[in-house]
Amino acid sequence: MNIRYANRTSNLKASEIRELLKLTEKPEIISFAGGLPAPELFPLDKLNEVASKVIKEKGQIALQYASTDGYMPLREIIVKERIAPTGVKCDTSNVMLTNGSQQGLEFSAKLFINEGDTIACESPSYLGALNAFMAYGPKFLEIPMDENGMIVEELEKALENENHNIKMIYTIPDFQNPSGITMNIERRKRLSELAAKYEIPLIEDSPYGELRFEGESLPSIKSFDKAGYVINLGTFSKTFCPGLRLGWILAEEEIIKKYILIKQGADLQCNTFAQVIAGEYMKIYNLDDHIKNIIEVYRVRRDLMIDSMKKYFPEDVKYTYPSGGLFTWVELRKDLDSASIMEDALKENVAYVPGASFFPNGGKKNFFRLNYSNMPEDKIVEGIKRLGKVLHKYYTK
Amino acid sequence: MNIRYANRTSNLKASEIRELLKLTEKPEIISFAGGLPAPELFPLDKLNEVASKVIKEKGQIALQYASTDGYMPLREIIVKERIAPTGVKCDTSNVMLTNGSQQGLEFSAKLFINEGDTIACESPSYLGALNAFMAYGPKFLEIPMDENGMIVEELEKALENENHNIKMIYTIPDFQNPSGITMNIERRKRLSELAAKYEIPLIEDSPYGELRFEGESLPSIKSFDKAGYVINLGTFSKTFCPGLRLGWILAEEEIIKKYILIKQGADLQCNTFAQVIAGEYMKIYNLDDHIKNIIEVYRVRRDLMIDSMKKYFPEDVKYTYPSGGLFTWVELRKDLDSASIMEDALKENVAYVPGASFFPNGGKKNFFRLNYSNMPEDKIVEGIKRLGKVLHKYYTK
Repeated sequence: MNIRYANRTSNLKASEIRELLKLTEKPEIISFAGGLPAPELFPLDKLNEVASKVIKEKGQIALQYASTDGYMPLREIIVKERIAPTGVKCDTSNVMLTNGSQQGLEFSAKLFINEGDTIACESPSYLGALNAFMAYGPKFLEIPMDENGMIVEELEKALENENHNIKMIYTIPDFQNPSGITMNIERRKRLSELAAKYEIPLIEDSPYGELRFEGESLPSIKSFDKAGYVINLGTFSKTFCPGLRLGWILAEEEIIKKYILIKQGADLQCNTFAQVIAGEYMKIYNLDDHIKNIIEVYRVRRDLMIDSMKKYFPEDVKYTYPSGGLFTWVELRKDLDSASIMEDALKENVAYVPGASFFPNGGKKNFFRLNYSNMPEDKIVEGIKRLGKVLHKYYTK
Repeated sequence: MNIRYANRTSNLKASEIRELLKLTEKPEIISFAGGLPAPELFPLDKLNEVASKVIKEKGQIALQYASTDGYMPLREIIVKERIAPTGVKCDTSNVMLTNGSQQGLEFSAKLFINEGDTIACESPSYLGALNAFMAYGPKFLEIPMDENGMIVEELEKALENENHNIKMIYTIPDFQNPSGITMNIERRKRLSELAAKYEIPLIEDSPYGELRFEGESLPSIKSFDKAGYVINLGTFSKTFCPGLRLGWILAEEEIIKKYILIKQGADLQCNTFAQVIAGEYMKIYNLDDHIKNIIEVYRVRRDLMIDSMKKYFPEDVKYTYPSGGLFTWVELRKDLDSASIMEDALKENVAYVPGASFFPNGGKKNFFRLNYSNMPEDKIVEGIKRLGKVLHKYYTK
């Protein structure tokens, strides 16, 4: 066969995480690789009750085609219960449902990026977003981070330099993937101002913001946005159930209308059944109560992972201390390569995601990402112990 | 706001059908516009039983993230029960799940089309496909049809002419949308040979093939494909429930691997819950029995619509007689414009889809599409009667 693919396919590569997930499916492996929520927390009994109610009372609507922008009662709940508390005033015309926020990421590149345009993002950044963007042939400008998130002054310098041709800014302000770092309030405000000043869309990816273990919630970048250039991506994947594939885009109505056109062509609409179930669930039950349960469990797991790293990792290994979300980010000695160490780790039946693919322009190999949400407590301790054993070999050499 | 969109967005336009569906949501309107299945046939009691079983027995899997290619037990059922009967031998490595076949269409353009490449398609063709393709900036070459489908000799001439730069062929061989026409077996065979000879991917879109009211089922184009250039798109939207958004791509493994990369970036995976429900349903119940019910109802509706058109339409109005599927295609006198007549029709509370947007290069205005699957029998008669009244005004002028 000699079939010709479009040029853009040369940019496509398999997500390292998704490939790893296949390797780590063996039951003997303790995997800190995926970004999976804890499935034992899914509210199955309530979902069973709600699914049955939906089929009986609204089955002909819930299994039929529906509108591209999404099921109105669910959009109303999103506006009132998920968006309003972040300090953003909007209505349902500002919200379109997506198949998880991953679809919002892909649509954003499709909507804003011509081949060769530059996307500015944190260094490191979420590799699933980088992969989604890559199909549209962008360049990436990596903006360094410190303990308060993206160093916005560096972004500003880059925006002043027209040679960079920045056409989109991408950021994950809360408990960033992969670093676990949260952006401070001053930088959020400044980012919204820069987007307005340079008339550049800013994609604020917020999958983890509601999973805060301690301290005060920070207002979203969108909450400072007066000019309309900030586009916020939300999702129920981490706060409810990822298998339902329900996320949303929050943006000015003019921009939402463009996203709707893209979604029409892409897949017509989200799963109606999932939308009606989610809407009905959130009418009957308070999702915030469920989120509180998740937070309590994840906080314990975060603490356990950090404590275990203190105990079992070589002293020189650094890691972030996230105040929420799913991940901590580990920094090894500069000469070490986390991808080759991963082979040793797999022999000890423990897995993580090597850090290199979170840097779109390549380079840094001495990092890896650990997830603490998906493994039960005993496996967190045991897994970190195994990983410590592997790392000690490299640190005593 | 002065936000800059990517160049490709200038090609995006709202689906005329989706916009019309909004207009036609008023209960007093008898709408033949959408392509909706009959919701009263959805197997709600069985779905309720299966959904409950899935949540109880497999809830933690069914609500969690899952693999991009799709839920293995469902792919096994698709291979065995939906694909094998069409004469194609394959295994699960040849199948990837999609959010309805609409997503398979969009992915196909993303995978094969560079800006300026030509897509050859039937004239007229499914406007949802044209919209999905349009985002990638193709040219369209419309191949005329007769009562046996696309006139393949015309396509062959175009393929011989290198100026056309044809990079993809798109066809709906069974009960085509919008024409209702079915391609004969010789042309199917010839199309598969042409795809191989010219090494061009051929997208065979098969949403309606299983809804045959009379006569023998014809083998798919894919069943003649020895060289691997034919890509077949299937869906449960017309044979089960469209709200679940479950379709699939059938192709050579090498090609499926590329589609998987595209889907990873686009939305990670289909709704897990819907996939597990569909898989479990089809283990317990025979989908063919359900399809038989659908066929019986739609056959009656097709007959009723055709008989009513005979009775109420002006004698000179032509229409196709589909042996299956959801649509008939009406041809008016050459000087008439179905879009402007639509305004009169809406005043009489009856709706159809004007034909112009099914011709990607524009032009023909004297056609419209009628759907007979979604309206109950009494409304079909009453709606066609109203439409006949409107048309008579134009034919007696």
